[in-house]
This record gives sequence, C-alpha cells and structure tokens, in this order.
Amino acid sequence: MIDEYIENNKDRFFNELFSLLRIPSVSAMPEHKEDMKLCAERVAALLREAGTDEAGLYPSEGNPIVFGYKNVNPESKTILVYGHYDVQPADPVEKWDSDPFEPEIREGAFRGRGTADDKGQLFMHLKAFEYLVRNNLLKHNVKFLFEGEEEIGSGALSKWLGAHKDMLASDIVLVSDTSMISEEIPSINCGMRGVTYVEISVTGPERDIHSGHYGGLVADPVNVLCDMISSLTAADGSIAIPGFYDDVLPVSDADRKNLSKAPFDEDGIMKSLKIAGFTGESAYKPSERIGIRPCMDVCGIWGGYTGPGCKTVIPSSAHAKISFRLVPNQDSEKITSLVAGHLKNIAPSCVSVEVKHGEGGNGFLMPTDSDAFKAASKAISDVYGKEPVPTRGGASIPILAEMRELLGSDPLLMGFGLESDRIHSPNENYRLSQFFSGIKSLILFDKYF
Amino acid sequence: MIDEYIENNKDRFFNELFSLLRIPSVSAMPEHKEDMKLCAERVAALLREAGTDEAGLYPSEGNPIVFGYKNVNPESKTILVYGHYDVQPADPVEKWDSDPFEPEIREGAFRGRGTADDKGQLFMHLKAFEYLVRNNLLKHNVKFLFEGEEEIGSGALSKWLGAHKDMLASDIVLVSDTSMISEEIPSINCGMRGVTYVEISVTGPERDIHSGHYGGLVADPVNVLCDMISSLTAADGSIAIPGFYDDVLPVSDADRKNLSKAPFDEDGIMKSLKIAGFTGESAYKPSERIGIRPCMDVCGIWGGYTGPGCKTVIPSSAHAKISFRLVPNQDSEKITSLVAGHLKNIAPSCVSVEVKHGEGGNGFLMPTDSDAFKAASKAISDVYGKEPVPTRGGASIPILAEMRELLGSDPLLMGFGLESDRIHSPNENYRLSQFFSGIKSLILFDKYF
Repeated sequence: MIDEYIENNKDRFFNELFSLLRIPSVSAMPEHKEDMKLCAERVAALLREAGTDEAGLYPSEGNPIVFGYKNVNPESKTILVYGHYDVQPADPVEKWDSDPFEPEIREGAFRGRGTADDKGQLFMHLKAFEYLVRNNLLKHNVKFLFEGEEEIGSGALSKWLGAHKDMLASDIVLVSDTSMISEEIPSINCGMRGVTYVEISVTGPERDIHSGHYGGLVADPVNVLCDMISSLTAADGSIAIPGFYDDVLPVSDADRKNLSKAPFDEDGIMKSLKIAGFTGESAYKPSERIGIRPCMDVCGIWGGYTGPGCKTVIPSSAHAKISFRLVPNQDSEKITSLVAGHLKNIAPSCVSVEVKHGEGGNGFLMPTDSDAFKAASKAISDVYGKEPVPTRGGASIPILAEMRELLGSDPLLMGFGLESDRIHSPNENYRLSQFFSGIKSLILFDKYF
Repeated sequence: MIDEYIENNKDRFFNELFSLLRIPSVSAMPEHKEDMKLCAERVAALLREAGTDEAGLYPSEGNPIVFGYKNVNPESKTILVYGHYDVQPADPVEKWDSDPFEPEIREGAFRGRGTADDKGQLFMHLKAFEYLVRNNLLKHNVKFLFEGEEEIGSGALSKWLGAHKDMLASDIVLVSDTSMISEEIPSINCGMRGVTYVEISVTGPERDIHSGHYGGLVADPVNVLCDMISSLTAADGSIAIPGFYDDVLPVSDADRKNLSKAPFDEDGIMKSLKIAGFTGESAYKPSERIGIRPCMDVCGIWGGYTGPGCKTVIPSSAHAKISFRLVPNQDSEKITSLVAGHLKNIAPSCVSVEVKHGEGGNGFLMPTDSDAFKAASKAISDVYGKEPVPTRGGASIPILAEMRELLGSDPLLMGFGLESDRIHSPNENYRLSQFFSGIKSLILFDKYF
C-alpha cells in the first residue's frame, strides 16, 4: 500500500521537490536574501498541502523560520521534525555536470544543489506525513521546524528557540540530515561530537625584528606558539589539558562492541586521502578515535614572512585557529574556558597570549536502548531487510544539542544520505532509491514509535 | 694635521659623497639597473681621484664589481677594503622627512638612503686613503673591492671571487659596514654569526578535509609541524638536533670576560621591543646568547584556513621557514644537511616531509689578540679617547666568511654606524661626528697595523 501510493504519486513528488530545488536559497550569500523568503514560503505551502493544521513563516533575526504542526491526540507522543531549507553555495559552478539550480534525474539520482543536503531529505518527511494523513494512519502529533541558516551556523534559530519553547514541546527531534554507511549496510547515527573553536594569538616584540640581531634572546612568537600547541597532545595521543576529560562519559564495552559492528574501511580512507597511516589515541580503534573520543586539530596557522625566498625575521606575532571536537556530556562553553585558561597558563612570560572564543556547540548521544532508536531500527529493518548498525558521527550539529537542552527531546538521526552524495561539493546528488526508502522508513517509524 | 686636512676639504668631501648618494642604486629593483652602473662608475672615478694606481669596473653576472688598488711596497702588508655601493629600497617613501635620494645635512647628520649603509662608510675609506696618499704617509698596499649586490645576497660577487683570487690576495679584509655601541662606548665587532635557512613542508591528506569527519584519526599537518618545530628546542634552550654543536668552538673564559665588557642594555631592549622577558639558553648571559651561541627561529609559518571566523578543517599541508644562526666554525652547508636529515628523521610516517635548502653562509671570528685587532683598537683609542670594547654581532655577512675561506684573510669590522642610523628604514642617516671619527680612525689604522 505504501509502495502503491508512492508509485501513483511520484511524478507529483518530483515536481514538488524540484520547485524547492529551483530556488537558490544560498544562506551564505546576501544577494539571495529574497530567495530565502521565497523558499521558506514554498516549504510552508508544501506543509499545508501535505496536511498540517497550520504552517507558516516566523520572523527571526535572520532568514524566516518555517513552523507547522498537526495534532492528532493530546495523549500521543509528539515528534518534532527538524531540517533546513538553505543550501551551500554552488561554487565552483564550472565543475557541475548540470545547472545546480535546474534539478534533473539522471542515472538513478536527483542532481542539483540541495538534493541531499537538505531539501531532498526534508521533503521525505513531508511526503511520509502526507501519506499518513491522507490514509488516516498518523499516530503521533507532528511538528515541523525548518530553518534557513543551518549552513551558516544556525545563529538566528538559536536565538529564536528560547522564546518558542512551549510551541516546540516534543518527545523526540527527528532529523534527516546525515548519511548511512551504504544501501547495503543501513545505519543510524546515534551520536555526534560537539565542537569548541578558539583562536590564539601570541605576541612578542612590538614589531618584526632582525633574527640575527636578536635571535637566541628574544622569544620568537612562532616558536612559542608551536611549543604551546605541541604541548596540548600527550605521548599517548590524548589531549594534555588538565580537566579536559573530566566530563567524558565512559563508553561501555557493550556499546563499543555494538559500534564496532559498523564497517570502517581503514584502507579505503588511507587510499582516498593518500596517506600512509593514521595518528591518534593508541588505546582506541581507528573508528573509535572519530566516533567516541574528543580531538584537537589546528585548522589554520600563520605568522611572519611567507613569501618567496629567505627573510630572516623574528615576527611580532603568530596565530592559530584550533578546533576541539567534544564528546557527549562535555560542555562546549566549559571546555572553551578550560582551554583558554590553560593556554594563558602555559604561556611563557616573554610573550603575551590572547585567546578568542569562536563558535561552539555540544555533542549528544542517542541511547540505543531508547524507544525511539528501537522504533527507527525496526522501521529501517523492514525497508532494508536488515537491521541498521549504530554509528557515531565525528562531526557536529550544535543546534540539535541546544534543542535537546532546551526541550529535553533527544535527537534521532534517521539520515538517508550516502558518501557518494557529494554534499557541499559540485554535482551534489541524492539517490532515488534512498529517497523512496527514506519515505517508507519514516512512515514506519510513526507506526513503531 | 689630520683635523686640519679634513677641515680644509670637508665641503669637497660632502659634495663627492652627495654625488654618490644621489644615484638611486637600489639593487633589489630591476628598473635601477642603469643606476647601478652609473654608481659603480662614480665610485671608480672617486677611487682614481683619491690616488689609486688603477680602478675600474669588472663585469659580473649581476651588477658591476668595482676594483682598484695602490701598491706602495711589495714587502708591506696588503689591506683589502670591502664595501658595497648598492642600497635598500626607500619604501615606504612617504615616511621620509626628506627625499631619500636628495641628501641633506641636518641636525649633525647626513640624511638619505645609503648615508650609513654603506655609501657613507665606504666613502670614509676613500678619504682616509686620499689623505695618506697625498701626504705620502701610506704604509700598506691597498686594494678596494666594492660590490653592488650586498643587499640582495652577494650572489654575483660570490661567483666572481674564485676567478680573481690572486688579484684579491691580502692580509686583512677591512670593512666598515657595521655599528659601534655608541659614540661614548666605541666598539669593534670581532665576530658574526653564520646562517642556514630551510623551508619545511608537511603534507598529510591530499586535500583539505572535514575536521569532524576525520579529526582524531588523520594527522593534521599543522599539529605535526608544531610538534616537529617544538622538538628542535631542548628544555635548557639549546637546539636539540644531534650533532648540531659538534663544530662549535668553546669560547674561553678570557674571551667571555672580555666580551662582557661591552655594555648590554637588557632593560633598554625589553622596553624598546615592549617585551617582559627574554628566552634562550639559561647557561649563557643574554648578550652571549646573541653573540657566541647559535639559535633557531621560525621566520614564517602558514597552513590551513586563516580568514575570518571558524572553518573546521584539517589542512592538506603546513609550511615553515626556519633560520638557524650559526657560530664560527659551524659550516652552513653541513648544518643544512644535518637539519634537513633530522627533520626527515623525526617526521611521523602518517605525513610526508619536504625540506628545501635556502640561503646560507658561515660565521667568522676575528681574534682579539691579532695584530689587526690591536692596531684597530689603538687607532680608535686615539680618536675616541678610550679603548674600544670587543663585541660579537648576532647577524651575518656571509660573503666575508667566503672571502676568508678563499683568500685566508681575516675580516676586520671597523664599523662606525650607530643604532640611531635607521638603516633599511625610512630616514636613514649617518652622524657627521662618526663620519669624521671614522676617517681619522682608518688613517691611524694604516699607521698602527
């Protein structure tokens, strides 16, 4: 019956999805301001057509927020569907095989910017909901929250949330904005890392000075910065900042065993990145170093003379941007203060050190023994013919942790993207098979939850 | 009698010097190619007027080399005077109080580019020589070697030297291209450091990758570079490269005591650079860390994202330019190989490391018990009324070490510049009192050597 409904309506589905994909809702580019509003209105219209009681735009300090809902029974649990209608820029446009904003279906996939991230995945929720409403099957109250700034940090939504807490009350936040391992190995992402970002500046002499006249006596800020950064990693690969691991929850042997079921292609990664080996905490398996452990990476460093040839100078200052990926229960703000304090602590007195706090957000964990996880697992098992494996993502969606803290609702990441979707890159695409499997899985989730 | 000669001829001296200063012989700028030749010809003409047997231009693969000589007695020692007629660019021109190439005398100093570095100092030798010739006092055979590429690395002279070894045969290379402590504390620079410059590149993943997806597992080239750089300095401030100190000659207690006579204004340096303290080898006094010890400074570092905001990326590569200052008897080429080998040795296998060799040159030492040093000391004592203190310069003039190796002639650095001369900066100037004291000292050196 689900298959039949999809088959009978798929041309309409495609047309509706294409109407969204055609709007270049690039949140990073101010010239698309009007497109953001157009796209939000189109999403709200599709929500109403799909069967919400109400759906409309809410102003924020940035792009409009789309909210809609359908109440079926005050006794029922409430699902809050989160997604985003904004997309990444299409640059470099010349590398696309077809117009990024003129969607096509080619070789079994939707082709165009936003097909996977996140318009295509967001749209699956509308169609699963439509099916349930039109067939009188919807068991849960459903709320939809779609923002237009996910690709630029969710700043406006973050500020909007607090004043709309009651409106967003829910039991679970359901999100399709991630990937699974493959069509053959379905998976559910049951945790993401948090992030803390700091920028450190080390300043020595008030101007660049001659390395001959002063070298050996006046501290070189680049040398000092390298020493400081190097000291942050211990010999075993762990992060050497006192207190850094205080709030890291131990992962049970059972959970580690469960997570290890997800295949992890070490050779494939090495080959794809052209590297000869890995680094990191020797006490953890490669997949665990990404999935369940925090890490520290310098994302950028600069200072002194970087032109051609040899200039012998002790630069006045040196700078680095450092990201820390955090695991669930580590608080980003607390870690930022800890890191900043530690960096100031270890700074030698011959330089001055300034630490700027950048973006941050907490990680989160979806327990695999929760009702929501079990329902999602059963739904996906039905559709894919095998049980999904739990995975942990190394990346961060800070807004989900914020929503969990504010609403008390755990996020559930039923993502149907694939590694081959090329999100954020030219030739973004989304496989039709995953699109259909996604709709079916989401319909069944309402049944089993 | 010297004073009288100078007084009677000083207007002519000024005019002649100004004729040199007016030629914008900026070796770094190709558009001044013709000015280089003009300036070389003017120097040769001044040499002939001053009384050389012969003086003229020699072609090199770069700017012309000026050579002249006067033989008085085959039994006498020969002094080879070295200097350079090229100057630094005048940029930023708007910061000058007067036209850099229209010299003036203002507030007791020559004002203009090249007044101190090195046309004004080079010119003192011509006038000391003129005095000695015209008064029939010249005791030594004198040769003059002036190049036009000192400010860009002396590459052409370096290649020219070998084929002109016999022509340059001499007992001492006399140079006025450095400074003394002050007019009240005359000094002689009796050693300079060598230099070795390398550029290191650390490459990890073949493209910039997402720090969330890979952080903790894939080595970040910036982290690795910081670790490598940090490991080059030991806890006591020394350089932790096996073999690095093998050729460093111990400095005798007597020499250290002698060198410590030179005042070293620690507070003044800290105040001028706005720093709260020094770094370096705790076993050596601050002045010694510059004067008699090698050091390692990162002159530039870059890699990854350096724009505004927070980009969470593991960059594909990271780079640094590193200068090592060497002490006498350390061989620059040997150290370059040692450093490059060590860096490759300590590179973890998860990255690849490339080391490019930059410019280099050896340091040198003028023994304070040599006849030349004693004669210079006596000459300066007569003029300044007090004995000059021996100092060691932290900077490098690699061509002098090359000449010493080729000709066997020790360099003698009778420099009359002052800290306030602002060489390489806007408002370069050279004090008239030092100009006259320099001429007198050089005349007396011929007498006492």
